[in-house]
Amino acid sequence: MARVTPLFAELWRLLGDHQLSIMDTKVYLLNFGTLVLDGYMMFWGRGPSGPFRFPVYGALVEHKEGRFLFDTGYNMEWVNNHMPGIGQQTEHQTVPGQLDMIGLRPTDIDFVINSHMHVDHVGGNHFCTNACTLCHKNELEAYKRPEPWEAPGYADRNAAPTEGDEYAPVPEEPDDRVQEIFTPRSELLSGDNEIAKGIHLFETPGHTPGHYSMMVELSGRRPMLFTGDACYTKRSIEENIIANAHSDVREAHDSLQRLRDLADHHDAELFYSHDPEAWQGWKPAPAYYS
Amino acid sequence: MARVTPLFAELWRLLGDHQLSIMDTKVYLLNFGTLVLDGYMMFWGRGPSGPFRFPVYGALVEHKEGRFLFDTGYNMEWVNNHMPGIGQQTEHQTVPGQLDMIGLRPTDIDFVINSHMHVDHVGGNHFCTNACTLCHKNELEAYKRPEPWEAPGYADRNAAPTEGDEYAPVPEEPDDRVQEIFTPRSELLSGDNEIAKGIHLFETPGHTPGHYSMMVELSGRRPMLFTGDACYTKRSIEENIIANAHSDVREAHDSLQRLRDLADHHDAELFYSHDPEAWQGWKPAPAYYS
Repeated sequence: MARVTPLFAELWRLLGDHQLSIMDTKVYLLNFGTLVLDGYMMFWGRGPSGPFRFPVYGALVEHKEGRFLFDTGYNMEWVNNHMPGIGQQTEHQTVPGQLDMIGLRPTDIDFVINSHMHVDHVGGNHFCTNACTLCHKNELEAYKRPEPWEAPGYADRNAAPTEGDEYAPVPEEPDDRVQEIFTPRSELLSGDNEIAKGIHLFETPGHTPGHYSMMVELSGRRPMLFTGDACYTKRSIEENIIANAHSDVREAHDSLQRLRDLADHHDAELFYSHDPEAWQGWKPAPAYYS
Repeated sequence: MARVTPLFAELWRLLGDHQLSIMDTKVYLLNFGTLVLDGYMMFWGRGPSGPFRFPVYGALVEHKEGRFLFDTGYNMEWVNNHMPGIGQQTEHQTVPGQLDMIGLRPTDIDFVINSHMHVDHVGGNHFCTNACTLCHKNELEAYKRPEPWEAPGYADRNAAPTEGDEYAPVPEEPDDRVQEIFTPRSELLSGDNEIAKGIHLFETPGHTPGHYSMMVELSGRRPMLFTGDACYTKRSIEENIIANAHSDVREAHDSLQRLRDLADHHDAELFYSHDPEAWQGWKPAPAYYS
């Protein structure tokens, strides 16, 4: 027989559980170096032109339920081979190098979450050989069968743990090999998800078909809302400028609006994906947010 | 009682009618000056950056059924006020100036066809005070209720004959005034249309929601296929590069493919909208194609 709990006590218990589960949560910002692109590649139709160098980073969430790494940066070797001259990354600015600062190894990562599967967000997945990779099912579909205009963004085919160090070109036919790369340590998601207490994935498509942003609740501060490439910079959201690379113009604008609404609703702080000025104001690992 | 005509004779009669109706058709290319934009604004995601100066022109079709003017260039006064420094246009490079070379006046135009309603395609509409303006119904809808990111392209509100010389800003609310501007001399279309014998409008959306390309059959040469902004340049179609300004990524690519297919199917020559090199190879008015 169910025990009848007074409403207030029940709420208190639930809140207590929630607080307890996020109490020890820490978020580290991992510095994965920088890339440079023309300003028009960052700000669709707005520019201005000229080199725009921007940070690439990941967010490590240490949580009661495991270690979650949101985005893994780019693979310097791949960038040097395919987009020579645009990357600046030291050995320290890699998944192993950044984790080492806080006494961890890539094998300590339980979950890799890819906001999306562009080259500068999945390049370090392969280090995390014990992790389960999470991404949106629409994103894996786009990665496996990119439209011709999407292919350059998805050109690093090493997006998940694999046996070799092969860097395959984007396939002309559907890339069924990708499914093999992902298995057995992957999970495809859709819709919004609270993947662990206080770690929320919100659908924000338009930059790519299956893009996720992540919000992390912490006990000692406002929630952190990692936009991923649904919002490159503070200017992007303030001036309503989507990324030059996008799969759907309307969805991309809707996702910018969704981020505004989420930030308002949860009183969350926005962590843009590629904002050099904002990056200067944040605290990188080994410091953390809690 | 219907007279039974042998199939061959009937076909011959139909072909004869068709040939007769296009026999006198002439096409004049009207030079409306040039604009300059960054290369990234012309070639989505590809550039390179740097100033790219391109021609703006219209096509006058003299046809048994009337005079059709496909696109009317930009209004130099409007450009000077709103995008200063990018236009180069002499008085000769206007609808009246170009028509004057061939002994016509703007009032001689029976139909203005707007491939779409961006500022550099509708700027001379207002000269044609006897014309009926044709455009796609989806295009007028976009012009009346532009999304915020579409508004700059549609910012010249003087897209059709009007009484005054008012240059209204893009409205924040739906612009019902536009319908008044259009009436009584306008006609909204949808689908593909043969608007006169041998003058075909083909739906090519994606640059804007209601974009038309126009193919003109001539008795003495291959059909001319005016792409409008569904294809800025030869490079665009060869390298599969859509315009930076687009309402729908997939539709814009599909329309590039449609233009390839139409050119193949009809053995038509492509006349790109903004190709400085191709323009050098064509013959401007007062010369004509027939």
